[in-house]
Order: sequence, then C-alpha cells, then structure tokens
Amino acid sequence: MIIGKVIGNVWATRKDEKLNGLKFLVIQPSKAGEGDKSTIFVAADMVGAGVGESVLVTKGSSARASLNIQDVPIDAVIVGIIDSLEVDSEFLK
Amino acid sequence: MIIGKVIGNVWATRKDEKLNGLKFLVIQPSKAGEGDKSTIFVAADMVGAGVGESVLVTKGSSARASLNIQDVPIDAVIVGIIDSLEVDSEFLK
Amino acid sequence: MIIGKVIGNVWATRKDEKLNGLKFLVIQPSKAGEGDKSTIFVAADMVGAGVGESVLVTKGSSARASLNIQDVPIDAVIVGIIDSLEVDSEFLK
Amino acid sequence: MIIGKVIGNVWATRKDEKLNGLKFLVIQPSKAGEGDKSTIFVAADMVGAGVGESVLVTKGSSARASLNIQDVPIDAVIVGIIDSLEVDSEFLK
Amino acid sequence: MIIGKVIGNVWATRKDEKLNGLKFLVIQPSKAGEGDKSTIFVAADMVGAGVGESVLVTKGSSARASLNIQDVPIDAVIVGIIDSLEVDSEFLK
Repeated sequence: MIIGKVIGNVWATRKDEKLNGLKFLVIQPSKAGEGDKSTIFVAADMVGAGVGESVLVTKGSSARASLNIQDVPIDAVIVGIIDSLEVDSEFLK
Repeated sequence: MIIGKVIGNVWATRKDEKLNGLKFLVIQPSKAGEGDKSTIFVAADMVGAGVGESVLVTKGSSARASLNIQDVPIDAVIVGIIDSLEVDSEFLK
Repeated sequence: MIIGKVIGNVWATRKDEKLNGLKFLVIQPSKAGEGDKSTIFVAADMVGAGVGESVLVTKGSSARASLNIQDVPIDAVIVGIIDSLEVDSEFLK
Repeated sequence: MIIGKVIGNVWATRKDEKLNGLKFLVIQPSKAGEGDKSTIFVAADMVGAGVGESVLVTKGSSARASLNIQDVPIDAVIVGIIDSLEVDSEFLK
Repeated sequence: MIIGKVIGNVWATRKDEKLNGLKFLVIQPSKAGEGDKSTIFVAADMVGAGVGESVLVTKGSSARASLNIQDVPIDAVIVGIIDSLEVDSEFLK
C-alpha cells in the first residue's frame, strides 16, 4: 500500500455505470525527498476519508477486493486512514 | 485511476481479433510538474470521450472489468470524463 | 497499451515449456521526450509483427488474455500493429 | 520480489474491516545507487519481521496469495526475512 | 518480460511456507543507457539459471502461471535463459 494525502475531489458525470455511487478523491503520494515529484492520481474512497487526511491506498487488482465486486473497473482504493506512522530515528535523514 | 487528456487516435488494422470494435485513444497522463515528462499511452474508450477531454483511466487487470469480458487483452480503459477536479488551495504550489 | 517499436528478436532454448511455440520480440517503448531513456523489454507476438514496425503492447495479467491460456507466464504481448497515430497539433510541442 | 528494509510501523483505526488483525510495516526499498531516492511504502507482515530487518516483499495481486484470502485489499506483503544476500563480486561497482 | 542478468543468490530461512523449495536469485535488470540506474530485485528460478546468465523474467500475476500453483506469493520468475538477442543495427545508438 502506498502512503498518500487526500488533496481534493473529482467529479465525472459521464462514466462507466459500474462506478455509480462511488466517491473519488484526488491523492498525492508521499514523496521520497525534497525536489521529488509525485504525480497525483484518483482513488475510490471506502473508509470516509476527507481532504487533508493521510491515507493508505491499495492499487492494482487488489483494489477491487475492497469493493467486493470483481467486475468494477477500479485500480486504486483508499483502505485506511493513517492515525500515526512511526519510523525509527536511525532511518531518518 | 490516473488523470489524463485525450490527445489523439490510433488505428491498427492487424490486431488481436478480440480488440475488434473497440475505439483506441491516445492519452497523455497528467504531469507532476514543469519539465516533467509524461509518456503517452493508448486506452480503450468505453464512455465516448473525445480529443481534448480530461479523463479518468483505469489500468491493469481492472481495465478488463469495464469490458465485461475477462479475456480481452486490454490494460487501460477510459472509465470517466472529468467534469471538474477540485484541489484544496493549501496543496497547490 | 503502450506504443513501442519492434527492434529485434530474442532466443531462449532453455525456457518454461509453456512458452514453446511463442515468438519473442524486443520492444523499445515510445519516449516521452529528447534525452529520455526507454528500457527495452520482450513481448510475445500474436499478430505477426516484424522488426521496424510500431506496435501496441498490452502488459500485465491482461497479456495472458490474448493467449487464451490462463496459465502461460507471459506479461507482455503485441496485440496490434499500428497503421497510424494521429495527435491533435495543439498537443504537440 | 523486491528487497527492502523495515523502518517503522503504521497505525490506522478507521480502515477496511478486511484488514483487521493484519500488522502493517513501513518499508524502504533497496536503492539502485547513491543519491537514488526510494519512496517508502506499507506492507502487511506475514513472517514476524521487525524494524531494521531486511525483507523480501511481494507486490501486486500475488500479495494476496500469501493471505490465502482472495478478497483482502492488500497489494504488498512481506514474505521472507533475508538471512543473506550474495552478489558475485564482478557485478559490484 | 524484462531482460536481466543473474548476479547472486538470496537466502531466507523465515519465510512464507509456500515459498519452501523455491530457489531465489538476485536479478539486475538491463539498463536503458550509461549512467542509468537499475534496482536489483529477486525472482524465483524455474529454469535452472546461474549467476552471470542473461535471463527473461516475467513479473506480476503472470509469474504465478509458471508455478502452476495459483496461491504462491511470487511476483517475479525466471522463465527463460537467453541464448542470443539480436537488435537491428539501425536501432542501436
């Protein structure tokens, strides 16, 4: 799962009808370092996440496992809202 | 799902016969920043998108979920046409 | 699907026996821009492509859909030979 | 599988209920070279790994194979703790 | 499939029991050019490859197709040992 931040919403009226009822949020992935660029993407929200929250995002075919419907064309889904992330100080730089 | 823009069409006469009847569009993914490069790719269109429109593209095995046919060799499909994308101003740079 | 060019052949005598009978071609993916590097890879050919031709390549689990055999360990397959690719001039740079 | 190091823990109270009971660790992937950046990510732990240990991480749909439950939305899992890694000296630089 | 070179071995005593009996090799992917970095990874060996040999590696869910066991958490497998790779001279640079 990647670590990301919810930074916005996206709306699409004309879409695959299997996507009806799903909420789509704009995600900014965590960066590796200063100057690093991270391309935003869109994930379906299954946990009630809001703008500004740090989230865990599952990508690929595993995203559909969260939806319990095998044939929904979703490749990214928010599966958790991060309470805290603890990294040992010796690994910080 | 990634955010992209439809920038053109692609034609292929000699192709896997399972692809017959599908429309293929050239997609330019959204960029992370100035000077960033984004390699164009090709997606099947399931929502009637046109050149110049911003779209949501599902990649990987989930793309086949949109086609309702498990055995079509497609790894990218346009699942929605973006009406609007709202990003909180504090996340803009 | 990605856009690539067939630039060569690859031979492997000792291989997973499920790969017997398949033709493998070396693919150079399209580049995002000058100075951009694109790592070559290998794809199974299902459409009779030849060296120098531009092709559509499906990657990931969807590649196996072209083979009609679920249990062949292939993650890239040429699904079409590109006749033409038309990109609107306003998107060229 | 990628080679990574466990550098921390992550907690999420509000999450997909299918994730209940799983332990999530923060992984730093091995780097290609000096100055190279590696974005951290999160993997479920199935082997009892601890902070500071080098691990093998399986990504994508194969991660779910470790869980023996097809419908858990997990795309990365620690499948082994590395005892030693031996690289022939002629390939070192 | 990607082109890589076997550069070493990896051992893990504590691992997912489904991985028992598999041989794991360290792979260096082919590079796009001088100065390019390629992060090493680990693949299961199904063809008896040895250190120094150039190999074809299948990644993702297709890797499990080589194992004939759907529920083994493997995302990379060596499916062939490359005898020769012929690239047309006009594509060399």
